[in-house]
Amino acid sequence: MLDRSELIQTLKQASKEKVVLLVLDGVGGLQKDGKTELEAAKTPVMDSLARISETGLLVPIMQGITPGSGPGHLALFGYDPLKYVIGRGILSALGVKFPIQHGDLAARVNFATIDNKGNITDRRAGRIPDEVNRKMCEKVREITLPGAEFFIETEKEHRAALVFRGADFSENISETDPQKTGVPPLEAKPLDGSKKAQDTAKLVNSFLSNIKETLKNEHPANMILLRGFALHTRIPSFQELYGMSACAIAGYPMYRGLARLVGMDVIEVESGVEPEFKKLKDLWGKYDFSFVHIKYTDSAGEDGNFERKISVIEQVDQSLATILDLKPDVLVITGDHSTPSLYKAHSWHPVPVLLRSRWSRHSSVEGFNERELQRGSFGVMNTLDLMTLMLAHSGRLAKFGA
Amino acid sequence: MLDRSELIQTLKQASKEKVVLLVLDGVGGLQKDGKTELEAAKTPVMDSLARISETGLLVPIMQGITPGSGPGHLALFGYDPLKYVIGRGILSALGVKFPIQHGDLAARVNFATIDNKGNITDRRAGRIPDEVNRKMCEKVREITLPGAEFFIETEKEHRAALVFRGADFSENISETDPQKTGVPPLEAKPLDGSKKAQDTAKLVNSFLSNIKETLKNEHPANMILLRGFALHTRIPSFQELYGMSACAIAGYPMYRGLARLVGMDVIEVESGVEPEFKKLKDLWGKYDFSFVHIKYTDSAGEDGNFERKISVIEQVDQSLATILDLKPDVLVITGDHSTPSLYKAHSWHPVPVLLRSRWSRHSSVEGFNERELQRGSFGVMNTLDLMTLMLAHSGRLAKFGA
Repeated sequence: MLDRSELIQTLKQASKEKVVLLVLDGVGGLQKDGKTELEAAKTPVMDSLARISETGLLVPIMQGITPGSGPGHLALFGYDPLKYVIGRGILSALGVKFPIQHGDLAARVNFATIDNKGNITDRRAGRIPDEVNRKMCEKVREITLPGAEFFIETEKEHRAALVFRGADFSENISETDPQKTGVPPLEAKPLDGSKKAQDTAKLVNSFLSNIKETLKNEHPANMILLRGFALHTRIPSFQELYGMSACAIAGYPMYRGLARLVGMDVIEVESGVEPEFKKLKDLWGKYDFSFVHIKYTDSAGEDGNFERKISVIEQVDQSLATILDLKPDVLVITGDHSTPSLYKAHSWHPVPVLLRSRWSRHSSVEGFNERELQRGSFGVMNTLDLMTLMLAHSGRLAKFGA
Repeated sequence: MLDRSELIQTLKQASKEKVVLLVLDGVGGLQKDGKTELEAAKTPVMDSLARISETGLLVPIMQGITPGSGPGHLALFGYDPLKYVIGRGILSALGVKFPIQHGDLAARVNFATIDNKGNITDRRAGRIPDEVNRKMCEKVREITLPGAEFFIETEKEHRAALVFRGADFSENISETDPQKTGVPPLEAKPLDGSKKAQDTAKLVNSFLSNIKETLKNEHPANMILLRGFALHTRIPSFQELYGMSACAIAGYPMYRGLARLVGMDVIEVESGVEPEFKKLKDLWGKYDFSFVHIKYTDSAGEDGNFERKISVIEQVDQSLATILDLKPDVLVITGDHSTPSLYKAHSWHPVPVLLRSRWSRHSSVEGFNERELQRGSFGVMNTLDLMTLMLAHSGRLAKFGA
């Protein structure tokens, strides 16, 4: 029985056609006074495009499942997010550009405050400034850990990324953050009966005792809490899977990290519609596949700011000519998930999508919004289908069978 | 976990209701001047039918995957094309009506011309007439092959079908056609480490030395090139799976071969709308399931002839009364894949479908074309669902669970 990836490997063929995947993070919405953000926004350019595109709604994981940014983007890149489960620890490490390797064990760090009895008084150490965080990381680096190496890197405020390397680790160990104050940090415990999990828990606990000793005279960051233990396993690269050179034009660390994870070239760029579109133009012709990531639709949604989300969408529409002028062979506009301003968070609602190529079949779709796009030729489909379709529309898949 | 075929086996029940599956090969299209072939065609009969039918678009394999005729038809017959992968060699053998058996190894033959150094000068031996091909096949049949039997049958011009029988073969051996001239034919090589593949390669190479010797004084067909090695494994028959007697009314060899593969009775008929519809009428009542295959929608599409494709569609519409007058309990009109005239080849675009029975739920569908049909009750669905629905609509599936 052939599965999707085997099928793609069997059928893939070379092509010079250029694909642009424009992701408006969290673009899908819900109706407020009868209209979603997309319905309320003035988007004449995307509306015209929708009339001559394949359109529909995408289900990133499964109906009813709300995706994080990791699974949402993996699905867009054609990696089954239920197969490639990327732990939070790994995402943190990728976010700080740590060159993570196969076999590394990563975790998210909170600097925290404990009292003289060892009980937690603040799980975020008063949100110390980044500068203090960096000093604490330097102190932690003085520790020597028998049997393994470790790396700690500042993220922001009280958050850091931790990576262990050099032993046969298990990720099946429990977190040490009790998620409340007034109690001491938890010990890491093996979550299965394997020797690997026991050894890993022992190593982590010995590391934590060492930290407690090392930071005992510091304040307010005198302890760390660990969450999201995750082992890094190699993921086949975008280039290997699809035979396309790919770049990521994304201002935000997390999306840059995700792109790096699948082996895309990550371009230095300021976050924002205009600088990112301009960067795409400057690089045009160099890559087969360009992933452009617009963050602020999601941020506005998470803030519950309906008007601001509309304004980001309108800004994209007003600048879209920059992309259209490049005449990409395949242009996709979609999101990684919905972030309705009404819901103020990522949600499970299917995500608007439009795919324009010279082979797109038109439907009776009148505009770029949830209601209209759904009437298009894709109907409601799984996000994973999108990569297969981008390959097909760009001439990269041969016929299956005689 | 029950899968689709187990479910069907568990629930299937007898019924006398008659099903007609009318396949307009490659019927799906793309817009030229704003209209697809179906949108441009005048189809008053199918339009009226669409208003009282279940309708939608079918995805034969997976979004973005372009099906060959084999996988396209297997899906329509309810056989998962990703499970039943039919090799080219097998299709050739079926095409010439060779009674292929479980365990046979089949390959496609090109008669070719080699020079006195053994290098290929023409991979198609100047497209010899069928008559010469038949004479060459007779000469080849004089060869004795120790350890196995073989059969060779003329297809057309320089093409023939070859079948080995009587040993434990592997299909994992390389092709002998180098796909270019000026070089000698390749040796067949085992593609895995198994003894079976080694033995099969040895047998094929010994056969080919024999051929070279036998044909050395012939011209231009003095060698053969082999492609598409495929082992024939038994496929459960249509009758076994669904308890329906079935016939195929199809003028073209390949579709007749496919129907034979699933155990349908293949009816002698001239290719064309009127002779095929008339044949259906003559046979009416004899079979539970009748597969009627119209080839010329696909041929017109492959030729890029928009107008001719429209005219074939209109011809079907004008003759459809012949089928409607038979009052089939279930009538399906669809295609095995799309062949847009604009694309001039099979494509991955979903395929229009209509199913009419007395149990069909109507939608607000106004005509038989991609845009309208998609608004119907099937939406965009996998082609495999169609067979389950034909069984349900013809009273052949009991309730699942109490």
